[in-house]
Amino acid sequence: MSEINWKPVKSSSIPLYLQIVNFIRNKIMSGEWTIGTKLPSQRQLATSFEVNRSTVITALQELIAEGLLEAKAGSRTIVANNTWNVLAASSPNWPEYVQAGIHQPNKSLIQQINKAEAEPAILRLGTGELGSELIPADAMQQILTSLQHEPLSLGYEEPKGNMQLRETLSGYLRNKGIYASPSSILIVSGGLQALQLIAWGLLRKGSVILHEAPSYLNSLSMFESVGIRGVGIPLDSQGLQMERLVQLKRQHDAALLYTIPSFHNPTGAVMSEERRKQLTEIAHRETLPLIEDDVYGDLWFENAPPPPLKADDRGGNVLYLGSVSKALSPGLRIGWLVGPEQVIDRLADIKMQTDYGSSSLSQAVVNQWIRSGKYEAHLARLRASLLRRRDLMLDILKHSFSDCCTWNIPDGGFYIWLQLQKGISARKLFQHVLQKGILLNPGTIYDKFDDSHLRLSYAYPSESELIQGMQSLAKMIKEDFRQ
Amino acid sequence: MSEINWKPVKSSSIPLYLQIVNFIRNKIMSGEWTIGTKLPSQRQLATSFEVNRSTVITALQELIAEGLLEAKAGSRTIVANNTWNVLAASSPNWPEYVQAGIHQPNKSLIQQINKAEAEPAILRLGTGELGSELIPADAMQQILTSLQHEPLSLGYEEPKGNMQLRETLSGYLRNKGIYASPSSILIVSGGLQALQLIAWGLLRKGSVILHEAPSYLNSLSMFESVGIRGVGIPLDSQGLQMERLVQLKRQHDAALLYTIPSFHNPTGAVMSEERRKQLTEIAHRETLPLIEDDVYGDLWFENAPPPPLKADDRGGNVLYLGSVSKALSPGLRIGWLVGPEQVIDRLADIKMQTDYGSSSLSQAVVNQWIRSGKYEAHLARLRASLLRRRDLMLDILKHSFSDCCTWNIPDGGFYIWLQLQKGISARKLFQHVLQKGILLNPGTIYDKFDDSHLRLSYAYPSESELIQGMQSLAKMIKEDFRQ
Repeated sequence: MSEINWKPVKSSSIPLYLQIVNFIRNKIMSGEWTIGTKLPSQRQLATSFEVNRSTVITALQELIAEGLLEAKAGSRTIVANNTWNVLAASSPNWPEYVQAGIHQPNKSLIQQINKAEAEPAILRLGTGELGSELIPADAMQQILTSLQHEPLSLGYEEPKGNMQLRETLSGYLRNKGIYASPSSILIVSGGLQALQLIAWGLLRKGSVILHEAPSYLNSLSMFESVGIRGVGIPLDSQGLQMERLVQLKRQHDAALLYTIPSFHNPTGAVMSEERRKQLTEIAHRETLPLIEDDVYGDLWFENAPPPPLKADDRGGNVLYLGSVSKALSPGLRIGWLVGPEQVIDRLADIKMQTDYGSSSLSQAVVNQWIRSGKYEAHLARLRASLLRRRDLMLDILKHSFSDCCTWNIPDGGFYIWLQLQKGISARKLFQHVLQKGILLNPGTIYDKFDDSHLRLSYAYPSESELIQGMQSLAKMIKEDFRQ
Repeated sequence: MSEINWKPVKSSSIPLYLQIVNFIRNKIMSGEWTIGTKLPSQRQLATSFEVNRSTVITALQELIAEGLLEAKAGSRTIVANNTWNVLAASSPNWPEYVQAGIHQPNKSLIQQINKAEAEPAILRLGTGELGSELIPADAMQQILTSLQHEPLSLGYEEPKGNMQLRETLSGYLRNKGIYASPSSILIVSGGLQALQLIAWGLLRKGSVILHEAPSYLNSLSMFESVGIRGVGIPLDSQGLQMERLVQLKRQHDAALLYTIPSFHNPTGAVMSEERRKQLTEIAHRETLPLIEDDVYGDLWFENAPPPPLKADDRGGNVLYLGSVSKALSPGLRIGWLVGPEQVIDRLADIKMQTDYGSSSLSQAVVNQWIRSGKYEAHLARLRASLLRRRDLMLDILKHSFSDCCTWNIPDGGFYIWLQLQKGISARKLFQHVLQKGILLNPGTIYDKFDDSHLRLSYAYPSESELIQGMQSLAKMIKEDFRQ
């Protein structure tokens, strides 16, 4: 189970252990904790209930005696059916159901990170989203107020999404050099959903999808869940290595290339203009369709990155992905996918079967943000804030990490790709600093063979957290990991 | 392709056919219409462009001569590559991609209905959603305004959804007799997504899911897409027939039963209290977990239906499904799934991989609706409006359909399940009246062997549309279908 929000009442006349017994018994008898449910460890329970571990042990022993719990190896406890209670005894075998299902669970490292992110005390130095200070809450309130005077569509939307938003996006994309009519735009609930739709809708089992190595794509299980394999292509300073791309495309008869040309996740790299031209040519010559993930494209600091690959796409070769999650608010859950109409039609049909469209309220809000010009104004402020944080992080790196690490200087986006000196395992460092309350993203998430990088993000922590966290990190590397 | 919003300018000095040639050429050269894309029929193009069919033919002939289009059998035209243009010639084989993918497209009848629903002139007598007059737009504006004074969470939410909303729902469910702590509630983007998560997360390929016959479930392709087979159980006046249920469960070793006990879709039936008790017992005895779809449960007219199955669930046997889509606003895309924590944890993990959670704005709005008491107040008004429309439909049925049809009298929800007299094919009637601008839901959507029922809904059309539509329908049945 993921969360226990209840605590025993210390001032009560009922002993603490008995309150815990009643709480757990109630959970079991109400069916929330069914047979096979694993309880948290005794230590975790003690922390969560704010009691001594001995109190937890007394409570668990009582429930074990009752037959509602069973002790397992390693002092773990599970819900059991060694009881007189007929109803509890006839619960479905949920553990078996939970093991079944085609969709794989998130990788355990990702689950560990998701869990740590839910703990408010954790200082997050790798999180790929805007910190609350950078999300424009006041302007959002203004937008909500301005919606009072707009006719709100609150029924189901068209399969491709709200028409006004698609028209607004058509204009927004034209400023990037992309010609896309509303009928070739699908509104999605964030970039992740677009990838899910592509995985389900366009690829057969056994397909190979090429991507940068390292890549954000490796952090996802969705492609593996439907039997699609990823193959990584090495990067150099200008982006994807083209000879390897051609070679691997032919070798695997790859179905698609997934790329993040601007402010790549996790390396922060920008594909050069020349390299983009080469990629467009090669993709045409080899008939290799591209997914261009441009969710960071608006987040440049001094100069905009080269135009998107989609702007140079004359043959309908590129599926282009954008979103407001990185630049405005992830909670709105609004992104867009641009591509040939037959592809967009197919994916819109699956989207209708999946969730019947994205929130019409969120769509109206995003439309208002872009159409009113408030989005552009927000971007100008955001770029300055991100640049300041980047510089702060670079200063600390230069001052405190020069003797143990190297790194890139990103021109936009969120990420610094920190290379650790030989002999320091990124995985071990991750686990070590997490114990001390600092959450990083180890490179192995993005490339399973990588044990020497960390993804740092200056977007999430406040400036003071950033300073404090980076200084603690430097200290830990030097004191605990220096050979 | 699904929509063409462009029209040639009649006042222009450029001939109409040439404007059409340029429009289509541009679509092809920009990659929006790639090779293999099927154009609408000449008739449809003429309607859409508001020109004579001969103008369309002239334009298409020119493009065929250029090699950008190719004529196919049945006067259909597709985008082709018989051209000098290198880029167009090297487009990916998107038609092949669109055919691949494990997720099946919507059934063709459903696609036809979705398409018809997008045409504003169509009168919809079967649509299972509130018409715009019944959606409380003014109160929604008030809610949005009231959010100005609430701290808005605009970042990613916790995997199970916004904690405040889950706490609010925990209280809302208690009023229905359901004990569910926030940790056993998953916020989803509507009931449909909950079913998708169950299909992907809990069932192995080849599983059998039992359901009422007819059932809403038959209108979905998602279970088939992952190799799960549905088996229908006949209904009588009190709901599911229990002997058949036991027999079919054993015969197929069924993994789950999906049921809509209150205001069933499409029949409007309510499962009696006694039958619910039997079902609970049988499900325990046979270890058959249930999905209880209660999205219509709040929409009773005079008396609330018997308590949900979940209220009587002591062993964690029931996955319970609710939503605001039917009673408040489908556009918010907010529903909830309640179940044992280990199941909710598993599905929350998949949801995170699918769309990273539902819109936090929509979640805040739903929380405000329920917590403020506005939802209950709205329900009181809505019940009265739906009852009035039900009575209006029943009046017309009695007056104009008595000699050709029979029907149920629903005590809540949206639907009347109209049985046609022998000799009238529901499928043929559906196609016939659609030509005349009236959209119905034929029974075959809900049971492929059913050709004698129509699902009528009094929720969508306005009262005047309802009168007009039903009278036209009666006339068509009598004049065009009477043997």
